[in-house]
Amino acid sequence: MALDDIRVVMVQTTHPGNIGAAARAMKTMGLRRLVLVAPLHFPHAEATAMASGAADILAQAQCVDTLAEAIADVGLAVATSGRARHLPWPHVDAREGGRQLLLESDRHPVALVFGREDRGLTNEELQSCHLHVGIPSDPTYGVLNVAAAIQVLAYELRMAWLEQTAAPAPATPRMPLLNVPWDEELASVGEMEQFFRQFEQVLAEVGFLSVQNPRPMLLRLRRMFLRIRPDRLEHNLLRGLLKDVAKAVRFAKEQD
Amino acid sequence: MALDDIRVVMVQTTHPGNIGAAARAMKTMGLRRLVLVAPLHFPHAEATAMASGAADILAQAQCVDTLAEAIADVGLAVATSGRARHLPWPHVDAREGGRQLLLESDRHPVALVFGREDRGLTNEELQSCHLHVGIPSDPTYGVLNVAAAIQVLAYELRMAWLEQTAAPAPATPRMPLLNVPWDEELASVGEMEQFFRQFEQVLAEVGFLSVQNPRPMLLRLRRMFLRIRPDRLEHNLLRGLLKDVAKAVRFAKEQD
Repeated sequence: MALDDIRVVMVQTTHPGNIGAAARAMKTMGLRRLVLVAPLHFPHAEATAMASGAADILAQAQCVDTLAEAIADVGLAVATSGRARHLPWPHVDAREGGRQLLLESDRHPVALVFGREDRGLTNEELQSCHLHVGIPSDPTYGVLNVAAAIQVLAYELRMAWLEQTAAPAPATPRMPLLNVPWDEELASVGEMEQFFRQFEQVLAEVGFLSVQNPRPMLLRLRRMFLRIRPDRLEHNLLRGLLKDVAKAVRFAKEQD
Repeated sequence: MALDDIRVVMVQTTHPGNIGAAARAMKTMGLRRLVLVAPLHFPHAEATAMASGAADILAQAQCVDTLAEAIADVGLAVATSGRARHLPWPHVDAREGGRQLLLESDRHPVALVFGREDRGLTNEELQSCHLHVGIPSDPTYGVLNVAAAIQVLAYELRMAWLEQTAAPAPATPRMPLLNVPWDEELASVGEMEQFFRQFEQVLAEVGFLSVQNPRPMLLRLRRMFLRIRPDRLEHNLLRGLLKDVAKAVRFAKEQD
């Protein structure tokens, strides 16, 4: 399954800036094959400007006259569209559409088709595709810019590809609870208990535990510092900090 | 959980067209609250043109001078960023980030922060946020346009919202990131910054910052305490503790 084989087809795009923005959106997600059906202006300086670092995608873009030509050799054509009003057509959301396209991309050429800025795809064009895909949107204003729609679908294709190619086990140590990669080993329970003992001594020395019943307060502090789940380096930092506080305060006591 | 309460913050946007495209991207997904930090040009005809049917979002957009101002009252600030090179920070992908933001959006204000077109967010800005979120992208060209990035994250927010509203809602408020039920409101970003200022003063007073370059150390401490995500009670406890330490040490100084 290769993202760079998946074809993006833009039908009769009016604004060349949208073609450039689409190329950039594709490239950020690892897509490379752009087919333009009868674009109004192409090539165009505005397309190049909006493409930013994706000028190579524009340079390799193919221009054809009709959608039929653009998808003649594909095994799965997916058209972007809201839900069909008259004749229901197989319809999935962007996530499912991305998965389906990727799944079939190693069997035959697949294409993802986007319509005109103002009125999308014609019924005939929609009905030349196997499957319709929609991006869930707000019912009061669902009109995504075409390059923005390409960004979302290209993103879902990449997410599907990452799901498919995901390595079984993460190689890097992870920060527990947050489950993010981490560069240091975490402090052990024993180390944390040493920290808590030292912490409690310091709290007593600065007079923080002079209230009637310090127990609930200590418990809250313990809960807080256990939530940090400090790594070894952070643990040492906290211990060093406590030592400095104790030194500063003991120095005070000696002066009494 | 309401999408229209989630705040999108754009920091020092250079091209007004991107602000307009961002407003449109937001509105298609049901987001409404846009905050602009020191935009180069705003309002601007190009912003309005690119916003298309989302001019109302622009009209209601709020302008402030600094990121700190934009997120002072939020309980969860999420910054868009690639993975941090030097000091790892809690980092999730767009899907997980959308879920987390949505989950917390009914407990306190939440914000999603986007950086400058050319160089994103500064380290300091990144480090003022609890969590970093990245959009998986091609390693050879991962530079999404800022409005395209907003489209993807707004889309993931909507997908998370659709997931959540499909299932029966969890009844109890939950401890964010750890996702456990919680009984207290969390401290806001502004409150935590006050804590950090007080903390730094105390560190200086006890001599902990007397090393050559205290910056990396301070950064590690900041990361640790942001990981706690203290609730209001815990925040007060920490502040009280710092006050007692300062008192004890100042007392020492007076004896000198």
